[in-house]
Amino acid sequence: MKIGILGTGMVGQVLAAKLVELGHDVILGTRNVEASKARTGTNSWGQPEFGDWYKANSHIKLGTFAEAAAHGEWNMLATSGHGTLDAVRAGGKQNFAGKVLVDISNPLDFSNGFPPSLSVCNTDSLGEQVQRELPDAKVVKAFNMVNAYLMVDPKALGGGDHSLIISGNDADAKAKVTAFLKQQFGWQDIIDLGDITTARATEMYLAMWIRLFGKFQNPMVTIKIVR
Amino acid sequence: MKIGILGTGMVGQVLAAKLVELGHDVILGTRNVEASKARTGTNSWGQPEFGDWYKANSHIKLGTFAEAAAHGEWNMLATSGHGTLDAVRAGGKQNFAGKVLVDISNPLDFSNGFPPSLSVCNTDSLGEQVQRELPDAKVVKAFNMVNAYLMVDPKALGGGDHSLIISGNDADAKAKVTAFLKQQFGWQDIIDLGDITTARATEMYLAMWIRLFGKFQNPMVTIKIVR
Repeated sequence: MKIGILGTGMVGQVLAAKLVELGHDVILGTRNVEASKARTGTNSWGQPEFGDWYKANSHIKLGTFAEAAAHGEWNMLATSGHGTLDAVRAGGKQNFAGKVLVDISNPLDFSNGFPPSLSVCNTDSLGEQVQRELPDAKVVKAFNMVNAYLMVDPKALGGGDHSLIISGNDADAKAKVTAFLKQQFGWQDIIDLGDITTARATEMYLAMWIRLFGKFQNPMVTIKIVR
Repeated sequence: MKIGILGTGMVGQVLAAKLVELGHDVILGTRNVEASKARTGTNSWGQPEFGDWYKANSHIKLGTFAEAAAHGEWNMLATSGHGTLDAVRAGGKQNFAGKVLVDISNPLDFSNGFPPSLSVCNTDSLGEQVQRELPDAKVVKAFNMVNAYLMVDPKALGGGDHSLIISGNDADAKAKVTAFLKQQFGWQDIIDLGDITTARATEMYLAMWIRLFGKFQNPMVTIKIVR
């Protein structure tokens, strides 16, 4: 499938590499391709900057946000939270219309250090903001509650015996995303929590996740919904 | 042990009944004993009002918030979120000083219907507000992420293979609460997430829990932290 991924951080890198490995036709989108390739060294998370990562992954196609979004039959939003709305605007509303948009972004606010707070929560969510910005896109909030490596390899933790919660207004889009994540990555338990307002649940869960990450000093930590 | 329980809703009822059954010396505290006993019928959650419940549980001692708090070597805060700070003020600061206070309350705001939002979150929490109100109490946020029946009988769901997260500033108090919950109720996995600011994590998780409750139409739903 043709997939556009917006955002070249760790989430975008891991998703793009895995989806290309699985045979999908991916464009990884960024604001400025040459500027992204020029970033080298190590970022504040201890990860290689995009330019260094890309030297080892140059088989992956790069493009602008608009080129990625136009390319994708589905698109995935993997930006940092504070860049999310700018990225979808740069992607061009028409390039998302009628298409599934998997929104992975979280509204983390690091302006007061670690642990971050959320820039929106409780009575609104970033998922809802994206859906309001792109009323013709089929926004499915997904993957925002887990680490990038766990997204594409759920069996890497606890044999895959844990849960993923998704949200969105379009039942058909949620069913397709669920089938895709099960088939492509091996997810076992995906819970459709409801309409896009339920994205508040997984975004607010970040307040727990970020502290579990800190406590166990390992981002490979997640939840199983026991019922 | 002498235990004071503040709050006569479902959480207070279930905890009081179980702790008395286990041999503890409990006073269940309320604002006005006679008014509580006079409430009959069914409440908005479909549960019997306190007066009807108490007819079948009259072996449990009742008292004012202050009588309960003075009685307890440990106290438990089982009020609704909007009544929490009033209850601890009515309980009397001196009656909590130097004692463990297990804070179970959640800042749920039903003023806009269901699902509720939170009246405080993100950069503060009800647990922190209680600790600020009672600086000499050893506040341990606990149990606020699970249904009352699951609190006292964790094995009733998934064989008990799920997690409880606690928060508080006093390491010794958290260790004692952890040992108590394991010994008395059979909890298996209790995670000390950190100081009382980490109560934000479990309180904000309510945004997920309340929607899982709605989706599965069953309050017996919780999480296992997979790591």
